[in-house]
Formats: sequence, structure tokens, C-alpha cells
Amino acid sequence: MRIEFISTGDEVLSGQIVDTNAAWISQYFFHQGREFTRRYTVADDLESLIDIITETSLRADVVIINGGLGPTSDDLSAEAAAKAMGVPLILSQVWHDHLVVKYAKSNRTLSVSNEKQAWLPKGCEIVDNPVGTACGFSFQFNRARFYFTPGVPSEFKHMVTEQILPDIQQRFTPVTIPTLLKIKTFGISESALTERLAALSLPSSITLGFRVDFPTVEVKLLSTVEADLSRARALVNAELGELILYEGDGSFAAYLQNVMLEKGHTLSLAESCTGGLIASELIAVAGSSGYLDSSHVTYSNESKSRLVNVDKTTITQHGAVSMEVAAEMAEGAMLNAGVDFGIAVSGIAGPGGGSEDKPVGTVAFALASKTHTYSQLLFIPRRSRQGIRGVALYIALDMLRRELLGLDLSAEFGSIERRDYRIVDK
Amino acid sequence: MRIEFISTGDEVLSGQIVDTNAAWISQYFFHQGREFTRRYTVADDLESLIDIITETSLRADVVIINGGLGPTSDDLSAEAAAKAMGVPLILSQVWHDHLVVKYAKSNRTLSVSNEKQAWLPKGCEIVDNPVGTACGFSFQFNRARFYFTPGVPSEFKHMVTEQILPDIQQRFTPVTIPTLLKIKTFGISESALTERLAALSLPSSITLGFRVDFPTVEVKLLSTVEADLSRARALVNAELGELILYEGDGSFAAYLQNVMLEKGHTLSLAESCTGGLIASELIAVAGSSGYLDSSHVTYSNESKSRLVNVDKTTITQHGAVSMEVAAEMAEGAMLNAGVDFGIAVSGIAGPGGGSEDKPVGTVAFALASKTHTYSQLLFIPRRSRQGIRGVALYIALDMLRRELLGLDLSAEFGSIERRDYRIVDK
Repeated sequence: MRIEFISTGDEVLSGQIVDTNAAWISQYFFHQGREFTRRYTVADDLESLIDIITETSLRADVVIINGGLGPTSDDLSAEAAAKAMGVPLILSQVWHDHLVVKYAKSNRTLSVSNEKQAWLPKGCEIVDNPVGTACGFSFQFNRARFYFTPGVPSEFKHMVTEQILPDIQQRFTPVTIPTLLKIKTFGISESALTERLAALSLPSSITLGFRVDFPTVEVKLLSTVEADLSRARALVNAELGELILYEGDGSFAAYLQNVMLEKGHTLSLAESCTGGLIASELIAVAGSSGYLDSSHVTYSNESKSRLVNVDKTTITQHGAVSMEVAAEMAEGAMLNAGVDFGIAVSGIAGPGGGSEDKPVGTVAFALASKTHTYSQLLFIPRRSRQGIRGVALYIALDMLRRELLGLDLSAEFGSIERRDYRIVDK
Repeated sequence: MRIEFISTGDEVLSGQIVDTNAAWISQYFFHQGREFTRRYTVADDLESLIDIITETSLRADVVIINGGLGPTSDDLSAEAAAKAMGVPLILSQVWHDHLVVKYAKSNRTLSVSNEKQAWLPKGCEIVDNPVGTACGFSFQFNRARFYFTPGVPSEFKHMVTEQILPDIQQRFTPVTIPTLLKIKTFGISESALTERLAALSLPSSITLGFRVDFPTVEVKLLSTVEADLSRARALVNAELGELILYEGDGSFAAYLQNVMLEKGHTLSLAESCTGGLIASELIAVAGSSGYLDSSHVTYSNESKSRLVNVDKTTITQHGAVSMEVAAEMAEGAMLNAGVDFGIAVSGIAGPGGGSEDKPVGTVAFALASKTHTYSQLLFIPRRSRQGIRGVALYIALDMLRRELLGLDLSAEFGSIERRDYRIVDK
């Protein structure tokens, strides 16, 4: 079965807009066991649209077209569909009345340009759009079943999930919807993951996929056979062990929040090179006030002393980027805030500020608890300022995960070098 | 002239990878005065590739194909090109020798799978790839000039900018490269911008574009006529006034950093609902330590008192989300850090925590300086937790801009309601 997708619009074609609708529907269909054979991006002029509708009508079984259903003169999809099929546009009284009611609700009357959205190719079927004013529509033309959809992402997604995919399932041989298992990893590259998991001889029903969400990589296992999925999951778990952060959707911050709330622990941070990034990531999850007290973004040396009691002589002796300073920052954050854990990061994110001894990418981390303080000095090679900060964020959060789960805090993180580490028991 | 682009690969087609190469080259070509007529995304099986190469060879003048030049068995672009043209693959001694030298430099020998990258369709010309091992190549087939490019974004971009575009300029009628002017706005929606700028009667050589980078919108003016561009810039400036944050590339944080360093001012922050987001955005720019001392991420009420001296009775009387608390936070941050400005944000980002009096989206802001403290209570409607935090970030930074430029701090921000504001002179 050939399913094709057409993105329309000069703004998409000229790269002014990144085509997230195409990526979204491709992934959504893939996870529903349907795959596109081809995707197109075309300009929103009448000739281009008529060409592509005619071409795909002869080749595909299903064609989904996105965009060009709005009220402006650039919105030509309905007209192009009618011209391609050689039928007139006629006013859909149903959609016209629907629009009149919709506008009346917000005390507006229907303008001529908005009425345009109710003119559809003769003989087509309406695809309802409960969240917008653009009317979706569908028809058979030559070999293909066509679905016209609006460009607004929320309207598009609603129409695809609620109406178009169910309609395809009904019209064509149904497929079993596979189950998708997501496993989030950190500390291993996509290529290393590919190599290690390829050697596992996973059950043949499994489709193995990866999604890089820097600096993490998500392993995706897709199968219609539940037993195979369980077996694959066990094999992947055994192979990757502590490199796995967590399973399922949601962020690492959300995962950590659940564990922190479950255990009733509290946290305060002291951030230098990450500069609020860790706090911001944790606070992005609603309910984070249940365990996160504060973060001390101590960017200047003076603020390290003022806010988290770092001894000025420690900075003079070891430098601001050192295990000693990070340890004092973490302890200061924990003690001052009166919480269970303090986590601190101090590093050289670059591009300036590096030295031979401590090049750009050198980052000191510490985690203080009531029983011990762990600190480490790592070197994150070959990354931009934002890259170093992004990796440092995940290393800091992974230290908390390891502390909470009772794992060794001296984790190996792929290409990241551990220059030094220390555990001080209290 | 018809220029078409083909993205290859199952991972792109199934939405596992967002096709940033396609968006990048489309935008790059657009800014160079060339536009694509159509883009395709196809699977990396031999038949699909041969089909699309043949189809486009009959229709287009230039076809750029991306991906499938790697060493693995999925990489079929060269084979498909040869099959489509009916020529054999032959070993390029030049590229083979190049690979041998490249591998020798890192003490590796060329494997059979890597040697595959030197087998190219007979009669093609090499397109050099100084940053990778995949060999680009080019040939004429039917109507079209074909360029085959690697999927790795850095290699792809290098090849397009250094070789392919110059080659196209040479082979086809050259176009004048237009000048692009970017104007970043905040506080006005894309649709409102479109309406207001459409009414300006800009010179006809101007192409007007918009790029939403939430919560800002960039206005893009593109023209080959410098005088028209100046005139358009003046018209847009007169129309939008204070809604314009700055011009050119770079972030708002980088713009503010320049002004702060120029004026020799220093800053400390106190963040509650933004939770480190403002600090993180500022610290993303290298050199931010020149003016940013610290941020106090005071998520708990207790930390507001401990870190930035908020009076506990102020919180009891007015609530943590109030102009009074924000003003004390900003003053505490400024005084404790011993800097020129303190900026504070305290709000209800949701989804929980709202009340009838202070619904989700209510955010208090304050800016303290040595001469005055300005505070305001705003309501940011209809946004997710992340949306509210993102808008709050820009409002806070815009307050700093307005303070630095001597503008009125009570700005209007489109749909955002000002519930209250206060200026206290010292």
C-alpha cells in the first residue's frame, strides 16, 4: 500500500518554516504500523498543486495534503483539487452554517474571506475540524484516496488522529498497531548503541530505532508481538545496564521528581557554568516545589562565597573549577537550604577561559548528602559552549539518579574523561 | 529554472529524524536568491531511489540528493544513480587514495566497507568533501544536473556552500544575491505583524518574511536593491517602534550583554517561576561573567527570605506572587550582590496553583536600580507551563532593555494584560 504526504506552502518550501507536521505524521503513522512511501513539499501556486495532485493520484493509494485551507488568497488547495479533478467548487451549506455559528459565538459575523473556507470540490466528503475554521475534506481521485488537512499543527494533529487514520484503517486492510517501548540512555553514542544492540540478536519482529535528543539517545523497540518486546527489553537492559536512565515518555527531570517525592528527599543546587540550566530543567516539571528548594547561580567567585560559603582560599588554592570548590558549593547549598542533597557544577564552558591544565570542557561536579560528599573532575571534549553545558546538566542529574538508586557515582560516560574523583564520608 | 531536492533515508521518511538538512538548504538557497520548486523525501531502497532519480531527471534543471553515501549496505545512492543512468559503478582511484591517506593519518587501514565510498557512477565528477569520508559527486542526466551529498549536516553544509552553489552559479544564469535584514520583535503576534506591515506599501523589490521563535517574531526583509531595503527598514522601524528588540543575528541575551558591558553595568537576578531560565539564557553567551554576578533561584518561600531578604510578612500579606514580593526580591538581589540592577520574577506557571484572584499565568516582575524600583503584575493568558515561563523570560529581559535605553517600562505586550504596576523612586 502506497501512502504519500504532500506539504504545501512557500514558507515551508523556502525553509522559513521547519515542517514539523510532516515529521510528526510520519512518526505517528510509523508507530501505528503504517509507513509513508514518499513525501513532497511543493509551492502554493495553482499549477504546482494541480501537478502534484494529478501525479500522486495515479501512483498512491492514500494521499494526505497539508496546508492551504485558510481564508487568504494564497490558500489554493481546494481550488487545485477541484481543477485537477475537473469539478467545480461548490458551497458546503453544512460548513457554512457551522462557521456562522462558530463566529456568532465570539460575536463576529462571517466575512467573505472566511466564507471561502466553505467552498469545497463538488462530491467530496467533509473531514470535521472541531478545533478550527478550516474544513478538511476527502475524495477518491483515480487510484488514490485524498485527505486535505489544515496547516495549523493542533488542527492537523486532531484531524489525523481522530478521523483520517481511523478512516484509513476502515477503508484498507487493517494493520495491528505495534507497541512502542522507549528506553532513554545517557553516556553512549548512537553509533556505539547501534553496534552493541545489533549484536544482541533481538527477535525478528522487533524494529529497532534510535532518537538522539542531545546528550541522550532514546532506544526504540517496536513490535506487534508482546512476548518479543519483553524479551528484547530484557536483552537491552542486560546489555546497557546503568547506561539506561529510565523507560517511557517524559523527561529525566520528571523521572527524578517522582523518585525524590517518593523518598521524601529535598534538594538545593549551586550552579556556575550551567548557570540555572539544572534548576530550570527541574522546575519545568509541575510539582517540583515538592522537593526543590532553591538554586544558587554563583557565577562570580564572590557569589560562591556569599551564597554557598565557599572559602576564598579554596578558590585561590585550587581555582573556581576544582573538585574542592564544587564540594564546598554542594555542601553550602545543602546546609544553607537545610535540605537532604546539594548538587554543584563549576566548569569552563568556553570558548575562552581554558588553560593547558584545565582546557575548555573541564567541569567539576559534586553531590553532598548527610553521609558523604562525592566530587569529580571531568573533561567533556569537542563541544560548543552550549554542548558542554548540556552534557554537564545530564551528568549532574545522573549523579542524583545514582545516589537515589544506590549506584556507583563514578559512572563511565563514553568519550568523557574522568580526570579525578573523591568520596569524603562524614 | 527548476531546482529540486531529494532527502533519502527510512529514518527521515518515518519521522525518526527531523529533516534539518532540507530546511537548512531551502533557507540558504532562498537567501541566495534561488528557490526550490519541489522537495521529496524517499525511502532508501534501490527501487524508490531509481524511480525518483529518473523522474526528476526529466523535469528539473538541478537536483540535489541528500544521504545514502555512507559505508553501510543501506547506503544505495551511488548504485541507484548508476542503475538509473545505465552505467556501471567504477572505483575512483582519486577518492580511494584520498581515503587511504585519511585513514592512515588516524592509524587505521581502509576496510572493504569504507572502500565502497570510492565506487562512483562511471563518468561522474567528484564533489570534494574535505570534512568527511563520503565522496560527493555530480553528473548530467537527461535535463538535470545532479549533485549527490552526504547526510551528515556539517559535511552537507560545507559541500553546498563551498562547491555546489558556486557550481550552479557558474553553470546557470547567475542571480544577484539579495541582502537579508532581520528585525526581532516581541509583544506582537505574527498575524498582527502581517497585517500592520502589509499596510506599509513597502518597495516592490522587498520580500517580507516572518519567523516565529517563540515568544519573539523575526521580521525578515529581503531585497537586491539596497536603497529599497533602507527605505523598508525605516518604514518598519517607524511602524513598530519599541516592539523591536534589536536587529541582526544573535540572541537577545547577546544584545543585552553588549549594552551592559558598554555601559559598565552589573546585574543579579532573583527567579521563582522562571527558575534559572533567565540566568541560563544570559550565561549561554560567552563573556556574560563581565556583567552577571549571580541568580538566586528562590523556589521556596523560605529561600526568598534567606537568599534575597524578602520579609516573611510581605509574603503572608501579599502572597509569593505579588509586586511587593517581586520588588523585595529584586532589591535583595541587587543589594546582596552589590550590583547595579536586580531583576526578579515570581509567578504561577501552572498547571496547578492558580486561584480566582491569581489564575495560572499571573506573574509579578520587578527591576531594581539605585534610583528606583519598578514592579508590575501581568497576566499571560492561554499558555502551557513552558509557554508562561518562556514569555516571562522575555518580559524580564525586555524590562532590562527598556531600563538601559531609558524607555517607558510599562510596555504593552499584545494579549498580555497588565493588572497593576508601580514605580518607587528612592
